[in-house]
Amino acid sequence: MTSQAGAGPRQSSTRREPISYEAAPPRVRAVYDDIMQTRGVNWVNNFWKVLAHDPVTLERLWQNVKQVMAAGALDPLAKEIAYIAVSVTNGCGYCIASHTASARGKGLTPQQLSELVAVIGLANETNRLATAYNVPVDNEYL
Amino acid sequence: MTSQAGAGPRQSSTRREPISYEAAPPRVRAVYDDIMQTRGVNWVNNFWKVLAHDPVTLERLWQNVKQVMAAGALDPLAKEIAYIAVSVTNGCGYCIASHTASARGKGLTPQQLSELVAVIGLANETNRLATAYNVPVDNEYL
Amino acid sequence: MTSQAGAGPRQSSTRREPISYEAAPPRVRAVYDDIMQTRGVNWVNNFWKVLAHDPVTLERLWQNVKQVMAAGALDPLAKEIAYIAVSVTNGCGYCIASHTASARGKGLTPQQLSELVAVIGLANETNRLATAYNVPVDNEYL
Amino acid sequence: MTSQAGAGPRQSSTRREPISYEAAPPRVRAVYDDIMQTRGVNWVNNFWKVLAHDPVTLERLWQNVKQVMAAGALDPLAKEIAYIAVSVTNGCGYCIASHTASARGKGLTPQQLSELVAVIGLANETNRLATAYNVPVDNEYL
Amino acid sequence: MTSQAGAGPRQSSTRREPISYEAAPPRVRAVYDDIMQTRGVNWVNNFWKVLAHDPVTLERLWQNVKQVMAAGALDPLAKEIAYIAVSVTNGCGYCIASHTASARGKGLTPQQLSELVAVIGLANETNRLATAYNVPVDNEYL
Amino acid sequence: MTSQAGAGPRQSSTRREPISYEAAPPRVRAVYDDIMQTRGVNWVNNFWKVLAHDPVTLERLWQNVKQVMAAGALDPLAKEIAYIAVSVTNGCGYCIASHTASARGKGLTPQQLSELVAVIGLANETNRLATAYNVPVDNEYL
Repeated sequence: MTSQAGAGPRQSSTRREPISYEAAPPRVRAVYDDIMQTRGVNWVNNFWKVLAHDPVTLERLWQNVKQVMAAGALDPLAKEIAYIAVSVTNGCGYCIASHTASARGKGLTPQQLSELVAVIGLANETNRLATAYNVPVDNEYL
Repeated sequence: MTSQAGAGPRQSSTRREPISYEAAPPRVRAVYDDIMQTRGVNWVNNFWKVLAHDPVTLERLWQNVKQVMAAGALDPLAKEIAYIAVSVTNGCGYCIASHTASARGKGLTPQQLSELVAVIGLANETNRLATAYNVPVDNEYL
Repeated sequence: MTSQAGAGPRQSSTRREPISYEAAPPRVRAVYDDIMQTRGVNWVNNFWKVLAHDPVTLERLWQNVKQVMAAGALDPLAKEIAYIAVSVTNGCGYCIASHTASARGKGLTPQQLSELVAVIGLANETNRLATAYNVPVDNEYL
Repeated sequence: MTSQAGAGPRQSSTRREPISYEAAPPRVRAVYDDIMQTRGVNWVNNFWKVLAHDPVTLERLWQNVKQVMAAGALDPLAKEIAYIAVSVTNGCGYCIASHTASARGKGLTPQQLSELVAVIGLANETNRLATAYNVPVDNEYL
Repeated sequence: MTSQAGAGPRQSSTRREPISYEAAPPRVRAVYDDIMQTRGVNWVNNFWKVLAHDPVTLERLWQNVKQVMAAGALDPLAKEIAYIAVSVTNGCGYCIASHTASARGKGLTPQQLSELVAVIGLANETNRLATAYNVPVDNEYL
Repeated sequence: MTSQAGAGPRQSSTRREPISYEAAPPRVRAVYDDIMQTRGVNWVNNFWKVLAHDPVTLERLWQNVKQVMAAGALDPLAKEIAYIAVSVTNGCGYCIASHTASARGKGLTPQQLSELVAVIGLANETNRLATAYNVPVDNEYL
């Protein structure tokens, strides 16, 4: 680490370089186009550009995300809230960054984010208390 | 396990019996009363009845839950959604049961629950992909 | 828990009853048929019968599993080995049971299972040591 | 962070500097020698060089890794696959980097790695679905 | 689950029956004897009786536990406290039960257990807050 | 990442700048003062300076930490040991750094830290073995 003056975090051996739109083959570009069109933006984030090394997974995952995160009975912001809660609990830095940005784009305010993080923290605490004491499920919840 | 005919799951040595309202000392009853009044119900779930063996923690946790889960910039159902997402990710059975019941009481429909679980599952998947490939955070998210 | 003589583990409020083939609507039966045909068996396990309450997710997940777990560059048994490693690490009892059964069907012997569990345990140990001491990634791994 | 111009990631207070072969006492060198001989390489990775501050643990862990990861009923590449699955699920960056390198040395191709990561992601998704719905274990798995 | 009247929790396909002292081969008995002698008790808990199906792992793990959990610079009760903290965080019911019993045998009082569980819960909460906000490590901790 | 010459780790979109004592409003300064007085130090670590963007949470969390981590039936060093065990298991780098520093301030020696990390690693291993084999809880633990 000390031998690379001025470098950012080191890349692990699993890191794959993001593939730009220009460098992407037609099959990958088709997914990028659909991502941009679905979201109404003119860029694609690195998650997809890294998956692009494996076009089968790129297509599969995008179809899943497109279907699952679309408006349904649950509104898109509620879905982003759940995504952030999972990502913080798992400690996935990239996912926290990208889905907080998405949530903000769908209207999440800084005050709402503060409250969300407080809920996530507290849930992680009470989860451990219920587990530690092996609390029996109430009849009312059956 | 085989020696207890007809028994349910065995109790671990950390399990503490829920303390009923009738058996509770005044300090504990005061918390139970506040829980029922705040929620507008006439019973207290086992989580609190188990914590009642340790009144200091009972009071502290209830004050936290009361403050954090109250309506704020984020509505109470959105907070329950985040709670469920954390509890499923951590695999806390009691917490999934109790907070799904709470969410239902605040209007979560079966179709919305299905969509929520789908989001939770997918987020756990994409979290691992981002981690595996060590995806660099986009400049757009900074 | 004590009030239900002879009962097994209590069902939480999120539990959904498995939907049998006979009770399933055509859309769900079509997935069940494809599962049985793909696997060359004459029954469907509860995971799918529970997802059947939400046919959209049932179809989506089955398409994912069918594609991802099929023979590819990695053989199907190696894929089951990875599945078991994830499931044990996450503590998912159902998943451990079902994928160990799948792996056994694909040739995993009891001795191999013993070795696999030993690797999973050891990896969880060394993961924590590397994290605790914040070990810098070697240049050789870049 | 801002005060260390050009620095890489900050070291936490638990980080211990890797101990080089030259600086290592005989007891530690003996382990380093065995690692290099067992693996047929001429260098030792930082995981061991950091553990070297605690020779008792260094010796114990190396004996465990040497025994568990050796060829047995399960081949060494299958063991690396399980190791990677655990490390990605736990989010251990160092472990992902080092065991992916090991797996590559034992023949894992980029296409196989893509498929492995896809399995790991999907297993993390279905684990949460089984947990969320508390799916009952099938009689066929008993 | 409903078809087994009066049954306890179902056994998954990975469950292995504990091997009693009487039924154990000499190699396994030798480990059982050492466990009982080291602990000054006249019985062996199921963890070891289940591992006994794989004598190599039984011997290896017992040697590890014997060495790591012995009195050292850190006293045995402090080691049990750390064990419980890990087990609660991972949600391992068996481990919580067994190590709480061990800790009690080494002097942990019910009041101390209450305080320990409170710390474990709070640490899980603050861990998520630090992760969510990506708090930079202070210079004072370097 | 490559475009920011000499930069440290990138900041995610959830990162909030620590608020210094000088820039803090009176309500926040009151908490900072109490932290410094309680600990007998003349600085406040970044965890609190980041939470300061949300004074309600800052006050609530500090009251919790102050109460839970104070000397009680369990001594403060034992509490830090539990905190470190949780933080390593969750992979929270900031928390490992800050609580290891706290523990050192309360007397934890490098040798004790080595033993603690060894226990944490081993507990994570045996947790997975108990889970994988679904070990039944002994009658002696009930």
